[in-house]
Amino acid sequence: MRGVNNKMLLISGPALQELGKNVAELLKTNTVNVVFKRFPDGENYVRLEGSVKNEEVAIVQTTSPPQDTHLLQLFLLADLAKDLGAKKVTAVVPYLAYSRQDKRFLPGEAWSIETIAKLMKTAGVDQLVTINVHANEILKKFPFPAKSISAMPLLAEYFKKMGLEGAFALAPDEGAKEYAIVADRILHGGYGWRHKMRDRYTGEIGFRNDKFDVKGKDAIIFDDIISTGGTTAAAVKMLKNQGAKRVYSACVHPLLIGDAEKRILENGAEAIVGTDCVPSHVSKVSVAPLIADALGKKEA
Amino acid sequence: MRGVNNKMLLISGPALQELGKNVAELLKTNTVNVVFKRFPDGENYVRLEGSVKNEEVAIVQTTSPPQDTHLLQLFLLADLAKDLGAKKVTAVVPYLAYSRQDKRFLPGEAWSIETIAKLMKTAGVDQLVTINVHANEILKKFPFPAKSISAMPLLAEYFKKMGLEGAFALAPDEGAKEYAIVADRILHGGYGWRHKMRDRYTGEIGFRNDKFDVKGKDAIIFDDIISTGGTTAAAVKMLKNQGAKRVYSACVHPLLIGDAEKRILENGAEAIVGTDCVPSHVSKVSVAPLIADALGKKEA
Repeated sequence: MRGVNNKMLLISGPALQELGKNVAELLKTNTVNVVFKRFPDGENYVRLEGSVKNEEVAIVQTTSPPQDTHLLQLFLLADLAKDLGAKKVTAVVPYLAYSRQDKRFLPGEAWSIETIAKLMKTAGVDQLVTINVHANEILKKFPFPAKSISAMPLLAEYFKKMGLEGAFALAPDEGAKEYAIVADRILHGGYGWRHKMRDRYTGEIGFRNDKFDVKGKDAIIFDDIISTGGTTAAAVKMLKNQGAKRVYSACVHPLLIGDAEKRILENGAEAIVGTDCVPSHVSKVSVAPLIADALGKKEA
Repeated sequence: MRGVNNKMLLISGPALQELGKNVAELLKTNTVNVVFKRFPDGENYVRLEGSVKNEEVAIVQTTSPPQDTHLLQLFLLADLAKDLGAKKVTAVVPYLAYSRQDKRFLPGEAWSIETIAKLMKTAGVDQLVTINVHANEILKKFPFPAKSISAMPLLAEYFKKMGLEGAFALAPDEGAKEYAIVADRILHGGYGWRHKMRDRYTGEIGFRNDKFDVKGKDAIIFDDIISTGGTTAAAVKMLKNQGAKRVYSACVHPLLIGDAEKRILENGAEAIVGTDCVPSHVSKVSVAPLIADALGKKEA
């Protein structure tokens, strides 16, 4: 691997022990173990078993639910590393919580991600690497270098290996259209996206009645986050109604709140495929190579 | 009321709506309403309905479990207030999470409260008022003025009003002895404290076999926090074994984790009495007057 930064020490936060270890293996870099526990009342305890003095460290910690606890763990670990003499702290946060609100919509509203970025900086974070952040613009306002890398190609490759080359790639709304375009470059089955519409009388959100080239074909819906699954379930149903053969749901961050998975499958999806940015039983694609690559470059 | 700061605006955080309102009433000060919700995935949303521009504000928000979420809400509210032009932010945090560890015990250990204090400062907190912090020394290292006030006199007064003047005041361990001394000044029934001991062979923690003047008398155990209730339950049992008539358990912060309440009552306590620093069904004593008094003084 070109330009690997062998001097980097890797710390796997409590939320992503497995992914952190896989990244360290790919990078052939040393790790520092975290002793972690929660007290009976819920308080977090962290201890580093090894020196980080004068080292560059990367802390791999996602902030999927419970977001606030995972954020606090990241703050504690970053501050601890700096306190113990670490030279530079890179936070690798595959799923970045509070990133869906990209602006202040109403007066007096907290713009939470801006607060969180400030807190990260105070905790000692010098740079951030995240994966498919929902709104890229927010990273530009971070008080330290922050970049988002895309796991969409990895998801498309996964389906290609499963024999789904030629499947139609659908983005469930216009904001996600880049995902379908990227997937199509790998699957070559055509792509499209749905158009959200607001009913001029009721104010209700619906979708324009677009026709997609899916009759008798397989189709895959690509999105960044599946939360309660409503948007995905509606897209699955629409594709099935238009005659799609098999329909799959792919996402980078499978939050799968409540009965999201059930809703999506009940509407006719064959399966949901996610990545390990958010560990879950649908996390069949690992982003470890992406992260290793991002950290391996001198200018991560 | 002497020296009331009428210009202060009061904001009740999501964790303590009731207490915040009571403090505002006592101070006859204006309040700014918080619109609060949690998204389906658990993210917090806050909005202030009213101007805080050039104002001094006090945010009343406790950090009882879920600690991390309550801390995040405090950070979001403080940063929002500052962002909207508040001149000074006083955080009123009746129960201060992560305050039980007053030093680093093992090398490599996070000293969490120090990190949290830094984060509070970054979020815009200019000073902190808390109640019966477990280890007073930690406040001296905060990067802004921080003080702890005692609710023990209010608890003792509550029992006096209940007709328990003359009850024996017990501290469940040496660290809590000041609580028993303070309570005795109001109840005049004598006081004492238990001595923790470590078995020199097994390393197990036990208590010295002290005798207390409780035979045929009522007794009240005073402590700052009841978490899993083990220490309190043991003290109740000991007092009953020594012939105490009725035994009560009093604490400022009734966390009551798991079956704490059941354990304490099953060992013979008549009741547990806590304050509203941690809202619970045993929170019979309100700290609103204490907080109003602390905020009312110009130099809070």
